[in-house]
Amino acid sequence: MKGLWLEHGELRLRTDLPAPRQAGEAQVRVLLAGICNTDLELRRGYYPFEGIPGHEFVGEFEGRRVVGEINAVCHQCDACRNDRSSHCERRTVLGIVGRNGAFAEYLALPRSNLHPVPDEITTEEAVFVEPLAAALEIQEQVRISAGDRVLVVGDGKLGQLVAQTLALTGCSLTVVGRHAAKLALLQSRGIRSMTDSQFNDGTSTRFDVAVECTGNASGLALARRALRPRGVLVLKSTYAGDLTMNASSLVVDEITLIGSRCGPFSRALQLLRDHAVEVAPLIHATYGLDDAMRAFEHAARRDALKVLLRCA
Amino acid sequence: MKGLWLEHGELRLRTDLPAPRQAGEAQVRVLLAGICNTDLELRRGYYPFEGIPGHEFVGEFEGRRVVGEINAVCHQCDACRNDRSSHCERRTVLGIVGRNGAFAEYLALPRSNLHPVPDEITTEEAVFVEPLAAALEIQEQVRISAGDRVLVVGDGKLGQLVAQTLALTGCSLTVVGRHAAKLALLQSRGIRSMTDSQFNDGTSTRFDVAVECTGNASGLALARRALRPRGVLVLKSTYAGDLTMNASSLVVDEITLIGSRCGPFSRALQLLRDHAVEVAPLIHATYGLDDAMRAFEHAARRDALKVLLRCA
Repeated sequence: MKGLWLEHGELRLRTDLPAPRQAGEAQVRVLLAGICNTDLELRRGYYPFEGIPGHEFVGEFEGRRVVGEINAVCHQCDACRNDRSSHCERRTVLGIVGRNGAFAEYLALPRSNLHPVPDEITTEEAVFVEPLAAALEIQEQVRISAGDRVLVVGDGKLGQLVAQTLALTGCSLTVVGRHAAKLALLQSRGIRSMTDSQFNDGTSTRFDVAVECTGNASGLALARRALRPRGVLVLKSTYAGDLTMNASSLVVDEITLIGSRCGPFSRALQLLRDHAVEVAPLIHATYGLDDAMRAFEHAARRDALKVLLRCA
Repeated sequence: MKGLWLEHGELRLRTDLPAPRQAGEAQVRVLLAGICNTDLELRRGYYPFEGIPGHEFVGEFEGRRVVGEINAVCHQCDACRNDRSSHCERRTVLGIVGRNGAFAEYLALPRSNLHPVPDEITTEEAVFVEPLAAALEIQEQVRISAGDRVLVVGDGKLGQLVAQTLALTGCSLTVVGRHAAKLALLQSRGIRSMTDSQFNDGTSTRFDVAVECTGNASGLALARRALRPRGVLVLKSTYAGDLTMNASSLVVDEITLIGSRCGPFSRALQLLRDHAVEVAPLIHATYGLDDAMRAFEHAARRDALKVLLRCA
């Protein structure tokens, strides 16, 4: 089959890949896949993955459209038996750890990972289920109430989804970013947003919760500074390399810092079906698999939001 | 009056200090004061404080023995009005920030900061109320249930109090440290404790909660490694300088990191009155104010636990 192959930090299109056939797993025909920042970082060699990348997808299985949770788990370890199966000690992760991913004509996943896509949701919308679920994980971890002062740092793909999901809580929401068009997109949905220089000049508010969605040290520093004592700092991005921080200030201000990863697919599907979030405006381009290299270049541009790959 | 004076990182005994007279505040005659690691760090110049250090004390006011909460607050700012007065934006902190402390014959604090010491508690025990309250703050922040696997890293003054208070929860407790005598003290109370090399060799358990009480980077790294995914890492010590950590691993494992500072005096007094904790064995020496320099040398020794100053 046709697919993208990552090896020694080099990504290339191959047509000689075997279609996956895994005993006890579903072979899913990939319809559409999304390029995520993790994919860009994989390509830059930040993680040791070798194989087919890609973990955001909509596919077809037994005549139905499906999306799929990305962690394939053992159901037996301590984490699995304690309701933390996304942290399974023996997990493989679609297109990220030990398992070929979605940038190909077919992928394999355990059947129990798949969720059917309701007819009300277009395929272009459903490709956002995985990152939308990751955005919703924040609300699984931190209780956010109406009126809470919440800051989202970052106006990119993830920041947009995080902001839209947090806006549903009735919190007092502010997004700070660096890209006029992306900030305008948030403003068009009634979400208060501003550049970081506007933020630093004008905002004396001290936030109850700050969500870091940039994956860089300056974003993290801004989020930290913006918090009130006993505030909560959610780390929603991965970070290349180590980060240095003032640990004493975390102690003196009794800050809670919480890492946040995969989230609930069922709730993400429900929000899309109810049109409670709007993801179509985040799509900047769609390429065929044959043009995947151009798609990756596009996705890496500073002004880009979501770039999709049509795999079938 | 007589007292210790810290200026430009130099600590000396003075006899020419004015006794504090603050309108609306209590003038407390200091009976006994404890030397804390923060005092040692103040002396090393890690914080910009200038004046009389000392924040753990028992004193006498209007004929009664008292202990005192160390944050003097405004009662009006956002933090004070939202039940976080220990984070008051305009606070001074006894012997730490903008307010002379306890290593002198007299100190001043707002009357509302003082708590009477019940007769059942000796003065030597009551001097532990402040650090004991700080240890109890952990349980205000993190729900710890019977059977939870909890690790305390550090067998020093703070680690000992943290371990004793956590043992009361019925959790499955382990303490890791570097000093045979301090570990033996814990073992004598039935608390499982071991050296860090024993820990690294033999312990495959993954902990639900780890409390870092060493204030150094290797203690923090050990605590982090010991946690299961979605575990909670409590930072109970301050740290000199910045710390470097792998932020991606916090995200991937969805770790919660929480800074912890001052805690509830009333509950600390209750535990001492009920003999639920035992602090007397932690006292390694008591010096008069005239011998304060020797007391500081003693407190800085690796094998030392609590060193006290008799101020009256």
